[in-house]
Amino acid sequence: MLKLYGFSVSNYYNMVKLALLEKGLPFEEVPFYAGQTQETLTISPRGKVPVLEVKQGFINETSVILEYIEQTQEGPALLPGDPFARAQVLALCREIELYIELPARACFAEAFFGMTVPEAIKEKSRAELLLGVGSLGRHGKFAPYVAGESLTIADLYFMYSLNLACGVGEKLFGLDLLAELPKARALLERLNDMPNARKVEADRQAAMPAFRAMIAAKK
Amino acid sequence: MLKLYGFSVSNYYNMVKLALLEKGLPFEEVPFYAGQTQETLTISPRGKVPVLEVKQGFINETSVILEYIEQTQEGPALLPGDPFARAQVLALCREIELYIELPARACFAEAFFGMTVPEAIKEKSRAELLLGVGSLGRHGKFAPYVAGESLTIADLYFMYSLNLACGVGEKLFGLDLLAELPKARALLERLNDMPNARKVEADRQAAMPAFRAMIAAKK
Repeated sequence: MLKLYGFSVSNYYNMVKLALLEKGLPFEEVPFYAGQTQETLTISPRGKVPVLEVKQGFINETSVILEYIEQTQEGPALLPGDPFARAQVLALCREIELYIELPARACFAEAFFGMTVPEAIKEKSRAELLLGVGSLGRHGKFAPYVAGESLTIADLYFMYSLNLACGVGEKLFGLDLLAELPKARALLERLNDMPNARKVEADRQAAMPAFRAMIAAKK
Repeated sequence: MLKLYGFSVSNYYNMVKLALLEKGLPFEEVPFYAGQTQETLTISPRGKVPVLEVKQGFINETSVILEYIEQTQEGPALLPGDPFARAQVLALCREIELYIELPARACFAEAFFGMTVPEAIKEKSRAELLLGVGSLGRHGKFAPYVAGESLTIADLYFMYSLNLACGVGEKLFGLDLLAELPKARALLERLNDMPNARKVEADRQAAMPAFRAMIAAKK
């Protein structure tokens, strides 16, 4: 059986978890925190989550795990078969990760955990977030899903990145990142309301107090 | 025929260009600069290079273009057929991009173009670069190629990211990023010496003066 290493507060962990749930695949969740201990680095070369354990060993990096699951497992497809359509979905995933999730992530410590992020980094993130959301508005179809008529892994990236990026936009910059993208906002609400997404969210909320305590202990 | 949009100074452009050359595929180079003009954004949603034009339209994001070429075109394989081995190569690509190229990129303006990068950003990049190179040392095989016995797209990421990241390490932080990875250093030299890589490098050097002039005009 597939084993998913990580923790329920991680948005990347939750992208893979929702993919597995949507495909109806059996999997075991193995509690595993990001870090730089020898034990962690043996499983995850950069000490990040999630990691997928399969018969042959460990697979790291969310984008790679999602493609591997798509290539090897049963269940509803989350990537188109046609190479050009597939490329459009994957490009949307990369754009959301590189140009929205990562700049937002640079500000998580201040937006969500009461720490301080240097002004220069916040300023850079703000500019990048605006460009990233602009890109999403141009490339996203929202018809009704990010890449078109059906749910794809671009929706997983969208949902678990925008929920947090919108929080950063609002809390640190007083910005409503989806103000000019009403279809995107409507999709975000629809995705958050999917039965499996609600389960993932319930697990996230249940895990949050212990995670906050861990962060506070490290401060 | 495939059309590759971009400019010869871009390291991401050169990853795709070398892949096309190594596969012996005919392609046309279309001069195209990154930016936020309406014309640029019509072709590339985030205004980045490279972009590949195929019959059905445009494909952006280097990682996506490289996979698309692999999936649809002839020539020597740059990704393994086995899904697990393929995942390891792709994970190495992501690790090099996210944890080495991107932190180095945040410092390019100061390292290569005489501008100033805020201390907070340099400090973050320095810490991330050290962790990124540590990750590469754990996950990379260098036997002799990054992912094992044969050339893969992980070598393209490695070569065109480390050449620049090592420059950033040396110029801004007085660090030799490959000091503890002699096999990686030997591979970098071997890759830079490949006939097609020398051609790409000659094109890069020829394009550099015009690119520097363009940057200087924008300062």
